[in-house]
Amino acid sequence: MSVISLINAIPLEQIRYNEQGLVPAIAQDYLDGTVLMMAWMNKESLQKTLETGETWYWSRSRGELWNKGATSGHIQKVKSIRYDCDSDALLVTVEQIGDIACHTGERSCFHQIDSQKIAPPADTLSGVFDVIKDRRDHPTENSYTCKLLEGGDNKILKKIGEESAEVVMACKDDDPDAIASEVADLFYHTLVALAHHNVELRDVYRKLQDRKR
Amino acid sequence: MSVISLINAIPLEQIRYNEQGLVPAIAQDYLDGTVLMMAWMNKESLQKTLETGETWYWSRSRGELWNKGATSGHIQKVKSIRYDCDSDALLVTVEQIGDIACHTGERSCFHQIDSQKIAPPADTLSGVFDVIKDRRDHPTENSYTCKLLEGGDNKILKKIGEESAEVVMACKDDDPDAIASEVADLFYHTLVALAHHNVELRDVYRKLQDRKR
Repeated sequence: MSVISLINAIPLEQIRYNEQGLVPAIAQDYLDGTVLMMAWMNKESLQKTLETGETWYWSRSRGELWNKGATSGHIQKVKSIRYDCDSDALLVTVEQIGDIACHTGERSCFHQIDSQKIAPPADTLSGVFDVIKDRRDHPTENSYTCKLLEGGDNKILKKIGEESAEVVMACKDDDPDAIASEVADLFYHTLVALAHHNVELRDVYRKLQDRKR
Repeated sequence: MSVISLINAIPLEQIRYNEQGLVPAIAQDYLDGTVLMMAWMNKESLQKTLETGETWYWSRSRGELWNKGATSGHIQKVKSIRYDCDSDALLVTVEQIGDIACHTGERSCFHQIDSQKIAPPADTLSGVFDVIKDRRDHPTENSYTCKLLEGGDNKILKKIGEESAEVVMACKDDDPDAIASEVADLFYHTLVALAHHNVELRDVYRKLQDRKR
């Protein structure tokens, strides 16, 4: 979304700011849907966000406008911006430069469960890909994924041929449950091939996003 | 995530509630990462959420605890719950029953851009799939997707064979950029097959989630 179309995306006067003149803003990754952070905007920071195409927040602790990433370089390029049904929350879809949103150096501020660091939730395919990469980097016995990776291209790619043929057959049978199962199999084995070649799923998503334009 | 493991997911005492004793909670779809709504929890509603495995919020307008979906049936089953780096925001991953979170009947409360209704952002694959379904339901001239869909199974499935062979070759060449491109092509054509057979991408995601267990 260009900067010009952003200007009109949000009716500044219609947003319901709280007693401090602030509205919560959720920043979400444009590729995989990960929630990166939640911060606050006032009318001025929202206006600057719309004008510049980068996120500006209001720092409650420092009491000042804050161009996210101005110091660290980890700016957020705004792809789109939405407001909710009662106009008191914003959702900003962003390209997070450096893929680090949190001041701790983590990708997302939402990385804590019971004081353990755990990757924030994204879409299903990204979640499965994370598990596959973990198996690749920390092999375990009796793991089907590890056996595939050990077999290398010839074992993995044979499965891609097989699973794509099974997608074809399930479609020819017009069997919805079989189609969903076989596509799940094809996606999984394709992700194993990506992991084996150290290609990121995000690179595939970027290719798809580029074509949408 | 079971109810038992949820109980210990969030250290209730460590969460920083605001002057009204509230903390913002973002509800996110567990399959595609869509942000469904933002509401508020107090300590009691957070505790009830952890205990029951369903979301409980604090209604600021009604001044009472609110078991989301108790009236409409659109409850949210909690899959996981996280807190952010400064412990003043929650991220709740949910299975949204009925796939409707908003009181307007929309899937997500974040459906507004410039007073137009626009689907909330999810992951890239879901976004591409939405475009393909739109082409299916509202065909346009000179659209490659429409031409594929017109050709039916024999045209679509031939492409799945072709694109899977191209993934195999790109892997054999160990060419990262070609691998990402060919996997993008394979995913796109597989999504066209799903749309042609009226199978939802969410059904594929559910198959993959079921296997993660």
